[in-house]
Amino acid sequence: MSKINIDKVLIIGVGLIGSSIARALKEYGITSKIYGIDNNPEVRSKCKNLNILVDVKSNLEDFNENFDLIIICTPLSKYKEIFSSIDSFVNKSTLVTDVGSTKVSVIKDYQNIINNHFINFVPSHPIAGLEKSGPEFGFAKIFENRYCILTPINKNDELKIKIESFWKSIKMKTEKMDAEYHDRIMAMTSHLPQLIAYSIVFTADELEDKLKNQILKYSAAGFRDFTRLAGSDPIMWRDVYARNKDAVIEMLGRFTEDLSTLQKAIRNNDIKFLEDTFSSTRKIRLKIEEMGQAGSFDPTESKKK
Amino acid sequence: MSKINIDKVLIIGVGLIGSSIARALKEYGITSKIYGIDNNPEVRSKCKNLNILVDVKSNLEDFNENFDLIIICTPLSKYKEIFSSIDSFVNKSTLVTDVGSTKVSVIKDYQNIINNHFINFVPSHPIAGLEKSGPEFGFAKIFENRYCILTPINKNDELKIKIESFWKSIKMKTEKMDAEYHDRIMAMTSHLPQLIAYSIVFTADELEDKLKNQILKYSAAGFRDFTRLAGSDPIMWRDVYARNKDAVIEMLGRFTEDLSTLQKAIRNNDIKFLEDTFSSTRKIRLKIEEMGQAGSFDPTESKKK
Repeated sequence: MSKINIDKVLIIGVGLIGSSIARALKEYGITSKIYGIDNNPEVRSKCKNLNILVDVKSNLEDFNENFDLIIICTPLSKYKEIFSSIDSFVNKSTLVTDVGSTKVSVIKDYQNIINNHFINFVPSHPIAGLEKSGPEFGFAKIFENRYCILTPINKNDELKIKIESFWKSIKMKTEKMDAEYHDRIMAMTSHLPQLIAYSIVFTADELEDKLKNQILKYSAAGFRDFTRLAGSDPIMWRDVYARNKDAVIEMLGRFTEDLSTLQKAIRNNDIKFLEDTFSSTRKIRLKIEEMGQAGSFDPTESKKK
Repeated sequence: MSKINIDKVLIIGVGLIGSSIARALKEYGITSKIYGIDNNPEVRSKCKNLNILVDVKSNLEDFNENFDLIIICTPLSKYKEIFSSIDSFVNKSTLVTDVGSTKVSVIKDYQNIINNHFINFVPSHPIAGLEKSGPEFGFAKIFENRYCILTPINKNDELKIKIESFWKSIKMKTEKMDAEYHDRIMAMTSHLPQLIAYSIVFTADELEDKLKNQILKYSAAGFRDFTRLAGSDPIMWRDVYARNKDAVIEMLGRFTEDLSTLQKAIRNNDIKFLEDTFSSTRKIRLKIEEMGQAGSFDPTESKKK
């Protein structure tokens, strides 16, 4: 299936996504020569126990190996440092990609730093995740049937095909688009929902203790859906908002306008408007289910992970 | 386990929750003499095919039976009519409860209409649900380990114990509280999250077609969590907002203040504030998981259920 011939892979940042890529590469028989870098000693120790990497170190300089493919899976605030490091280290033709949730900022960092012509970079964003962080939560199937968006920065078709093949080899569907357009879509589909989830949980957290405890207790009524997102990695998300500010603020503006419209309808007892709005949103849900992108939610406490 | 001795049960409104109660009563061996009323012929026909009721009719007047327990499971806007109907029909001592998401409005409707001293009413709110509606989606386990809040209107302890026993017999945990306090908690834990979910899906729905389609395609990035709630029954929710207006508007005010604070932090690059907020919300999620109220989400498209 894979047109890509990968021997040695280096994953920089072996958290939820990095470790899932390692597992997928092994499970699908692409390669088992997978190395890792993580500057967190706890993560390195977990990776050793999980036995998903040949070796894991804290710095690129500590490796003697050359890699065919380097995948950056760290929070966005680490990219400058990582680009500097690979810029001085790489000394043979190497494919490089990443998993960052914003793409304009990544391309800017890349263009400001990289001078090394051995580096063949195609920015990517695999749209897959979970509210957990750390290598112990990773699993190969997280990518299955999910989209990976590529935002290529040059016209080298062979290079794009190689990186596409890599993502396809771990069962993703690939799409290509412009980095600015990617960031705008993600502002609506990811960064705004995440911000709203953080915000509503923040609101609950500020209520007086008695009421707050009741809210946790009765969270199955809807609130818990938001807490799932709000359980996500704080550093990763802090970095996203710093790097997709304009698009997030635009979408937030649209959202607050619509929320005010609904608030006004409630205040004025405009039952008809509420019913019509709630009926139209239901259709959106059905479309997502039809597209096979809904995931599945089990309202009971089944103990399957 | 159950201290309640129920022979014949009538469920008024046999949708998701009504049909789930019928299934639970049968599956847990409480009673199989379960009758239904639904004014929607399609729902009646589904109930007949599903074989979960002894009989289903469109009006209370069509039944010759007397019932030990009547459970109202319709949208809130039907309650006045239902109370009038049971007020004239019931002619022996009968337990009555309901599943409505607001309790002050239910008690008001009850007190304005009911004169029949055979009727022993304890308002209830089983906090269980799913974004689907219709009897075909019901299942007994939906109640397991979830809370049912009772907001009793008189001091008859025996009556309260009976209704509590009923909910416990279908594996719920019960709590009692004042109706006003219930409505305030639900405004935060249910009605506000639901409104926000509707609102963000509404925002996406209003974007230009090309962008909207992309958002559905990439909804796994977070947006889909909101669409799940926004897939819920429009009539049920329209009625909730008409009946818990003040508490919803209060919580909405708090939420928009907090969202503005986050927006300002993004605009001002206040990375520290964002990280601190996102870290504190994560703790809330962990508490809900510890309390066994988180449900479980499978990000893959497993075709279970």
